[in-house]
Amino acid sequence: MIRVTVWNEFRHEKEMPEVAAIYPNGIHGAIADFLSKNEDMTVRTATLDEPEHGLTDEVLNNTDVLLWWGHMAHQEVSDEVVAKVCQRVNDGMGFIALHSAHASKPFSRLLGTRTDMLRWREDGDMQRLWVTSPGHPIAQGIGDYFEVPHDETYGEQFFIPQPDNLVFISWHPGGEVFRSGCCFVRGGRIFYFQPGHETFPVYYQKEIQTVITNAVRWAAPLYMPAYSTGWQKSVEPIHTYEDK
Amino acid sequence: MIRVTVWNEFRHEKEMPEVAAIYPNGIHGAIADFLSKNEDMTVRTATLDEPEHGLTDEVLNNTDVLLWWGHMAHQEVSDEVVAKVCQRVNDGMGFIALHSAHASKPFSRLLGTRTDMLRWREDGDMQRLWVTSPGHPIAQGIGDYFEVPHDETYGEQFFIPQPDNLVFISWHPGGEVFRSGCCFVRGGRIFYFQPGHETFPVYYQKEIQTVITNAVRWAAPLYMPAYSTGWQKSVEPIHTYEDK
Amino acid sequence: MIRVTVWNEFRHEKEMPEVAAIYPNGIHGAIADFLSKNEDMTVRTATLDEPEHGLTDEVLNNTDVLLWWGHMAHQEVSDEVVAKVCQRVNDGMGFIALHSAHASKPFSRLLGTRTDMLRWREDGDMQRLWVTSPGHPIAQGIGDYFEVPHDETYGEQFFIPQPDNLVFISWHPGGEVFRSGCCFVRGGRIFYFQPGHETFPVYYQKEIQTVITNAVRWAAPLYMPAYSTGWQKSVEPIHTYEDK
Amino acid sequence: MIRVTVWNEFRHEKEMPEVAAIYPNGIHGAIADFLSKNEDMTVRTATLDEPEHGLTDEVLNNTDVLLWWGHMAHQEVSDEVVAKVCQRVNDGMGFIALHSAHASKPFSRLLGTRTDMLRWREDGDMQRLWVTSPGHPIAQGIGDYFEVPHDETYGEQFFIPQPDNLVFISWHPGGEVFRSGCCFVRGGRIFYFQPGHETFPVYYQKEIQTVITNAVRWAAPLYMPAYSTGWQKSVEPIHTYEDK
Repeated sequence: MIRVTVWNEFRHEKEMPEVAAIYPNGIHGAIADFLSKNEDMTVRTATLDEPEHGLTDEVLNNTDVLLWWGHMAHQEVSDEVVAKVCQRVNDGMGFIALHSAHASKPFSRLLGTRTDMLRWREDGDMQRLWVTSPGHPIAQGIGDYFEVPHDETYGEQFFIPQPDNLVFISWHPGGEVFRSGCCFVRGGRIFYFQPGHETFPVYYQKEIQTVITNAVRWAAPLYMPAYSTGWQKSVEPIHTYEDK
Repeated sequence: MIRVTVWNEFRHEKEMPEVAAIYPNGIHGAIADFLSKNEDMTVRTATLDEPEHGLTDEVLNNTDVLLWWGHMAHQEVSDEVVAKVCQRVNDGMGFIALHSAHASKPFSRLLGTRTDMLRWREDGDMQRLWVTSPGHPIAQGIGDYFEVPHDETYGEQFFIPQPDNLVFISWHPGGEVFRSGCCFVRGGRIFYFQPGHETFPVYYQKEIQTVITNAVRWAAPLYMPAYSTGWQKSVEPIHTYEDK
Repeated sequence: MIRVTVWNEFRHEKEMPEVAAIYPNGIHGAIADFLSKNEDMTVRTATLDEPEHGLTDEVLNNTDVLLWWGHMAHQEVSDEVVAKVCQRVNDGMGFIALHSAHASKPFSRLLGTRTDMLRWREDGDMQRLWVTSPGHPIAQGIGDYFEVPHDETYGEQFFIPQPDNLVFISWHPGGEVFRSGCCFVRGGRIFYFQPGHETFPVYYQKEIQTVITNAVRWAAPLYMPAYSTGWQKSVEPIHTYEDK
Repeated sequence: MIRVTVWNEFRHEKEMPEVAAIYPNGIHGAIADFLSKNEDMTVRTATLDEPEHGLTDEVLNNTDVLLWWGHMAHQEVSDEVVAKVCQRVNDGMGFIALHSAHASKPFSRLLGTRTDMLRWREDGDMQRLWVTSPGHPIAQGIGDYFEVPHDETYGEQFFIPQPDNLVFISWHPGGEVFRSGCCFVRGGRIFYFQPGHETFPVYYQKEIQTVITNAVRWAAPLYMPAYSTGWQKSVEPIHTYEDK
């Protein structure tokens, strides 16, 4: 059973009626809805304005895969919670950064670059996502490509380290391309997935749900080593210099 | 001094007047022209219909970087020459595969996949090449992107191993994207560069010449270890099991 | 159900009594034995001296993961069968190269380098395999390291492309290290695993069986795209240059 | 001209006479000494107890490659300076982390993992460093391996992301292996190099000096893009959804 926590900033939905109309239970609610239909997942949610942003030790220690959506309030996420999230990823927890979470603190901290740097255009253009790693678990059930009819456009240069695996590249009518599905490993597995601006019903689209569901299964750790609990012991030397 | 050999199939230019009009001295001639203006390079050419395709042991053993353009006659390249080229790359020689050389025998042999598999559209469309590894030596002197006004369109899925470095992604108006500048290492360094259909004057374009020049410098080996001359010797064991 | 084929050269066992004493049913028999205890696998074997080396189209087309052990007769494997195996890996089949299969034709062809080049010492020394990718599926059930009490020693430099994932590094008392567990992707997933000289009962060791079992599950394709059946179709252009 | 800054914590040398005896001008002094003999480098030093740790904006903005040695006072390095160093690396500056700098704040922040986690044994054992990427610029002038006669032993598991290039693997008599020469890219190039405990004269060894000199040249940026100065502008759309 994969223990999933969907974290959402949950501000746009409360402040902008047009967003609330699309996501009446929040973006986290919409994502939790389709994920919880999978028999191998138990899903909970957490949001910025809860105590400790909903990410208590109890919650983090019982999360296998954490999804993260944030946009307007990245700076309000406490450094203490960010440190705990990153430590938990180092320990093996999967982390899936969605759309504008490219600029979130934990994603940037885990990758080590200014991940907030990219081009963007907010005019509801379409995007076509090409699969560049056919056979990768995250691309299962997707053909050679699929399209999101309306979303915010992101464009290179996306300032990330070279991904361990590049699963999707997006094409945009305006002339932009974007590395829209990127895998990284930092102890636990990390997936970045571009689509999902708050003003479009992207998370209701079937292919989007397929990719996120696949990503949760891919990112789920097989076991959780307890790195954080202590140092590794030195091994008893088989030989040392003196016995040469 | 980097010793460069530009290899060209040199058939289109002889058989198609419209190609000969663009490349009167062959594609190899056009490439050798701009490369030989660099004071750190000595450039020669070789073509399919010469004895041993112009790639004698003498030539290969004195080549630091080999550029390869081929299209209609990949299958006429002898397996013996291909084996020598691949061995030389394993020994450290740089190899730059241009455009339709994606389907050439040495490129496919070095990468280990069906590199001939991709989408293509031959209607003189434009392409925009985005730099996805700013700071990479091959992208020096190129801004965030540049455009080729008319060329053949290539599209994913390009059936290659995950590149060690992805330097360019192409955007095409038709809805295609393509990993158009890809670095690999197989002992020597390998660069694949998409532009360059025979019916367009692509190799006269300034940015194309900059990229290929950069790529030659990047691919030039620092030294050429002599792997092929013999086995590595076993080291004298410091300890063995028995003295435990 | 993962359809596994264990391929073995099966010559040492027939020609050397001391090997036959260790592996009375061949190395392939020993490997098939422990793999077939897994309820998610059906296992068959194939050997060099069978017609088509036991790897008919029927067998290959019904194999998800192919394990390969060879040593003294690499050159007797027909190029035609090698081409089919590589094509099938390109199509998604997993391939696990064991010990001296580092110098086998399909492994070398898929990787694109002189994989036969390495140091070796055949004196039954011990080796300690360190896990360098904790959390990787292939390392599950192994602690930080494990030891093989007696085996042939391999040492760097192992002339392979940079692995996509380096799961094990071996330590040898004589002063050698070796990248002993290496992952690659060439359409299908490839794993190289160092231990397993024919004169030692390595394949009966519990940790070895765990790693190979894990590797089979890791290498099993999720689906098998039919690349070999034909070209990808060009997409209908959304825009072309003329409508700019 | 490569502008090099050698940063050193410079505490052991002041507090421990046996360290001062080996490095009377500090570890930074010893490193600066051999680097400054290269005609293509200008070298300065900076230390923890200087104002802003010697890393003022003026210094950082005029540094192409920063070397970092720290051990007992990692936590005294201010987060503000760490942020500036990381930003500068993101902008293209090279960063070379030496020995115990594996646990330094900037290295850990750039890599995104608990890089302080590894095994260690401080008994002056020897180590043999094997070159696993022959042909890599950093390994030039080193044969297949070299040895450090006495140093602290580090052992796996080293908790780092998979390196972009693994240049050295260390062998230790006690049974440990270690990924001792690791390349990463975070905008600028990063190299980690294991040897160099303060109680041994490691930085006077010829091969160590060769590797560090090579690494400085490898890590030097070709140009310094000004990411930090502002957002990338959106491009003028070639097409938008509406004109479909």
